[in-house]
Order: sequence, then structure tokens, then C-alpha cells
Amino acid sequence: MFRSDLVKPDGRALWLYARHPIPDGLVAPSPNAQPVVPNSHLRWHPLRGEWVAYASHRQHRTFLPPPEWNPLAVTTDPSAPTEVPAGPWDVAVFENLFPTLSGQAHDPPESIVDTRPGLGACEVVVFTQDPTSSLGRLPVDHLALIVDVWADRTEALGARDDVTYVFPFENRGVEVGVTLHHPHGQIYAYPFVPPVAARELSQQQAHYDATGRGLLADLLQRELADQARRVIYRGEHVVALVPVCARYPYEVWMAPLRPAPSLPDLTADERLDFARALKTVIMKYDALWQTPFPYIMAFHQAPTDGQAHPEAHVHVEFYPAYRMPGRLKYLAGSEAGAGVFTADTLPEDKARELQAVEVTIE
Amino acid sequence: MFRSDLVKPDGRALWLYARHPIPDGLVAPSPNAQPVVPNSHLRWHPLRGEWVAYASHRQHRTFLPPPEWNPLAVTTDPSAPTEVPAGPWDVAVFENLFPTLSGQAHDPPESIVDTRPGLGACEVVVFTQDPTSSLGRLPVDHLALIVDVWADRTEALGARDDVTYVFPFENRGVEVGVTLHHPHGQIYAYPFVPPVAARELSQQQAHYDATGRGLLADLLQRELADQARRVIYRGEHVVALVPVCARYPYEVWMAPLRPAPSLPDLTADERLDFARALKTVIMKYDALWQTPFPYIMAFHQAPTDGQAHPEAHVHVEFYPAYRMPGRLKYLAGSEAGAGVFTADTLPEDKARELQAVEVTIE
Repeated sequence: MFRSDLVKPDGRALWLYARHPIPDGLVAPSPNAQPVVPNSHLRWHPLRGEWVAYASHRQHRTFLPPPEWNPLAVTTDPSAPTEVPAGPWDVAVFENLFPTLSGQAHDPPESIVDTRPGLGACEVVVFTQDPTSSLGRLPVDHLALIVDVWADRTEALGARDDVTYVFPFENRGVEVGVTLHHPHGQIYAYPFVPPVAARELSQQQAHYDATGRGLLADLLQRELADQARRVIYRGEHVVALVPVCARYPYEVWMAPLRPAPSLPDLTADERLDFARALKTVIMKYDALWQTPFPYIMAFHQAPTDGQAHPEAHVHVEFYPAYRMPGRLKYLAGSEAGAGVFTADTLPEDKARELQAVEVTIE
Repeated sequence: MFRSDLVKPDGRALWLYARHPIPDGLVAPSPNAQPVVPNSHLRWHPLRGEWVAYASHRQHRTFLPPPEWNPLAVTTDPSAPTEVPAGPWDVAVFENLFPTLSGQAHDPPESIVDTRPGLGACEVVVFTQDPTSSLGRLPVDHLALIVDVWADRTEALGARDDVTYVFPFENRGVEVGVTLHHPHGQIYAYPFVPPVAARELSQQQAHYDATGRGLLADLLQRELADQARRVIYRGEHVVALVPVCARYPYEVWMAPLRPAPSLPDLTADERLDFARALKTVIMKYDALWQTPFPYIMAFHQAPTDGQAHPEAHVHVEFYPAYRMPGRLKYLAGSEAGAGVFTADTLPEDKARELQAVEVTIE
């Protein structure tokens, strides 16, 4: 992996990654001329016991491109700079122009609840220069580079004092609110362990304390022993499956069999198998109804709090938007109000559908 | 309040409520002829430490009415029975034809995770006979009856051995997945305390143990002392406000100032003020953009586990679907994957918008 570290004219960082050396002299463009001074804050939600982020500067965006303009395409006309330069790079990461969290947040307003500066980071990961591609269509070695990029950013962000948890994710499809169609993901770096991760980590900690083993590693072994009924990818190192307790129809988890806590802990072989699993899952999704399959892809890994986390087991959870072609899965009263997911279909049936989709990867 | 208890030909219960006596001899109709034998099950999600409900019998619905047919309208043609009879009733409650939870659930399948029968109840609350009305348009004394109905069902369901938590809610609008436009809500009765309620109750318990006071009662007092900046209704007994820590744009909470644990604990005066607050909030929502405002309305109250819950404080949380006219608030990576809500607007600004909407109730 080769990396070139650049700074945009407005002060934001840009990192270019490639499988081959990147020549010197590339210049980081920005569609934005003024220095960016984001300043969000967090407020404590006493009833839920969690932080809520307010980035009201996002309202005052001076930057309103025409809808057909693609800021994630390479800059070809210097008078209309985008977020990334032309050049021989494969993956680019840059700091979001209007971040929800940033290292510059300061002086939170006083309030009747606790407040904190919205420290942390929000980064955009451009998966490829090709605006018409997608994760499922990129070659495995390109996907392996993306895994390396996620790991590299996890290490760099995790080393910061204002970051306690690094969360790579992809929102895919207008159904989950995406407005830019160029293939990209995001990374949020939080100054606390976010509630969903905190919950999963505490469940994992309790199991680890009781048994000395990993909760997810044990579950994966039971899934494989259960005739692999819900398994949709089984590599040497990595497995992908519809979990026995899926909340969303077609929900898929992807994890190394070895309970590595975080992306940087994965070996080169594990990363390559992770890339193959990723491609397989998304190809199956896209082939299922012969149309791009919208989802949220969320990483779970160990906090970056300087402690060892033998209980943590890095994995990906895919939350699909649809339960049938054209029928969204709504999070309504029971899900959003009470936190109880209700499913009309069994994980075994959804797994069978995905198993039946034949895909071939090189 | 008057109540008539009926049983449908397929065995499901129907309760009719009215402000005036209900004559004997009303017969409960059903669009369904066969006895209903729902059988859902719960599976334990080890990583999140919560139950997921699978009601795969819902897939096999034999009952496929034409889309324009309204099962919540009163039956006028005996050859096309609906869910409710004609007659002088104001509010009706019946057991859902395809419930996610029911008292009949039995023999859950064996699995690699813990399973349980999907015990509990799923009920439909028909708010009025008028298919074109809405909660905001009903008179205050009708809304007070609905509050009484929620309280009555909370008591009845809470007394059941297989019910630990009673959760009334309303999903309003196609944006949150509603397919029937007749004004109605639902009640789910769970055999466990659901995760969101459990979290709020444990936060309330910690505050009560530390201070001897209610967490929400204290927060409401601080909201009022903060120049009532976010308050949109202030009655003698009940307050409604955009909370300082709102997660959704235009999120509103409604609660009695006195920390009553549950709906049945509210006095007649408190219930009447609750009805006035409810009408005020929804009229403001609907007047804001001059169009029916979609939301999830979720009740929070004490578990029905036979214990005293002095820490619990009954309240309603409204989660609006839109952040601007025509612009949905998406729950994407940060919200769904990490559990961190990010807002582009401040609660104070949204409260000001709702405060500026003038509404008059009789």
C-alpha cells in the first residue's frame, strides 16, 4: 500500500492510497475556498444516557453545487475543483467539508444538560475513481486495498487523544438518504464509545469474563456447526452469514473466525479473505433482485482507548433497506419507540435466498 | 367511561368504549372467518442482549382486501364485515388479526440461541369512527376518553402473567410505513421490558437512588426554569416541549409535571390536561407546514412486573419523520449503526418554530 498525504487549500487533509507508488507533486483541490472552522457540540441525553451531536453550522453551507455535479469525481477543470485530484490513486480519504465531529470543535454552549465540544472526525472514503462502480464490482485486490485503508485510518484516528472509537460505514442508496452516487463510504471517529458498540462490547465482556472465550467467535462456531444453514460465504479465514437473530430481513454479518479486536489486527491473508467475503455478499445482494441493493454497512471494532480489548471481535453488520422488492423495512413504533425488532420472515428463509444466488469472483 | 366487551367470531376480543352508555346487543364482526392461531417466537440476540420477534405466520395471510377497503370503518354491509360494528361507540380496541405477540404463542423452535414463545399482545386502537379525522382534530373530551382507554388497556394487559410492559403508540403517515389511513394507534404488550424502556428506566433508577427525585421531573423543572425556551404547551398539570437533547428535528416530549409512573396513575384532571396537551402538539405539527405531520408517538411508562416503580415517570415521545418539508430524517450509519444521533438544527430553533404556530382549542 502506498499513501500520499496532502492538505487542501482550505486546511482539510486528503490522503491518497494506491497499490502502486504515487508520484510526487499531486495537488489537493477543494471546491471550497475559505478555511473551514466547524464547531459542533454534544449534549447529554439524561433519559437515554447518551450523547447527541448538534452541528448547526451544517445549516449555513455556502457551497451549493448543481445536483449533477460530482464532488467525488477527479478534478478535470481547474476552475471547477472537486474534492480529489486526477492522478494514479485507487482510494482517497478526506475530511468532510461540513463535519458533525472535528478536532476544531471548541467552547460548547452552556445548557441545562452537560455539553461537550463535538470533537472527533468525519471523513469521506472515495472507493474508486470510477463514478459508476460499486463495492461489489471492484476487483478483490482493490477491495483488499480498501480494507487496508480502513485499517490505516483506524490506526491514525485511534491514536488521537480526542478519539475513543473509530467507525467506518457505508450508506448505500437513496433509500438510506444518500445523495451522492459516486461509490464512497464514511468514517466517524467519536470521542466516546457509541451506544450500539458499547452495548455489544459489554455483552462480549460478560461472556469473555464468564468463559474466557469470545462471544462472537463462539456464535460463529455454533452457526457453522448448525449445518451452516445461514452461511453465505465460508473462506479460510472469514465467514459471512445471515445471523440466527437477524433483526433486518437479509441482514448479514461478516467476521474473521479468529477474534481479532480491530481492523489493524487482521493479517494480510485475513484482509484478502475479508475482501473476498465483502465482494461475495454485495454481489449476492445486487444479483438477488437484479438491481443495486441499498444498505447500511456498519463496522464494529474495539475502542481506541489505549486498553486491551480481548473481548472485542471486529465484524461488519449489513442492514438492508428493503424487505421485499420495492417494500421498505420501516422502523416504526416497536423498533424506534421500544427497541424491539419484529420480523415477518425467518433468517433461515432469507439465508436460503442469498445462498441460491450464484456469484463468481475472480 | 363506558365499555362493552365482545368476542369476534374468530375468537379475538373487541372492546368498545364510549362517553355514554353502550346499548346491549352489539355484535362483533370480523373480516376473517377462521379461528386465528398466531404463533410467533422470540430469539435472543447475544451481541445486543435483546429479544427479536419472528412472526412468520404473518407471511401466510389469507386475507387480502382491496386497497381501498377500510377494515377500521364500521360494518355497513353484513356480507363485507370489517373489524368494528356500527353503533354508538367512540373508541374501539381489538386484537390484531396477525399479531407479532399473542397469548397463544407456544412451542418455540429449537435454535443455537435461546428462544421463547412470542407471548404478549398486539392490539389496534381505533381512535374514532370518522375515517377522515385525526388525533389533532378530535375534541378534547374525545381525546380524554382515548387517554382513559390507554390507561384501561394498560391495567388489563399489565395484569396478565405473560405481560411485563405495555406500550401504546401511534405510527402516523405513509412515511413511517402506515397503510391504513383511518385514525388508529396500536398497543404492544411485551413479555419483557423492551430495550429502550429498560435503558430509560435504569437511568431514572440511578438518579432516583442518588437524589430521591425523579430524573424526568427534575429535567422538566430545569426546562421551565430555563425561560421555558423550548416549551410549547404549559398546562396546570402537563407540559409539552422540544427537549434540550432532542434527537429528531421537531421531537416533542409530553409529560405530567407530577412523576406518575403509569397512565393508570393519572388523576382525572391530569388526564384532561394530557388530552389538551396532545391536541395542542398535534395541531401545531399539522399547522406547521399546513399538511398532516407524520410521526411515531411512543409511550413510556413503568413495567407491569408487580413491583413499585417510583423512578418511572409516564411520558410520550414524538419522533417526526421529516426534518424539512419533503426532506426525511434518515437514520443512517451513525444513527442505525453506532446509535449516535446527529442533528443539523438546534432544539431551540425547532421549538421556536412550533411556539410560533398559533392554535386554539375549545
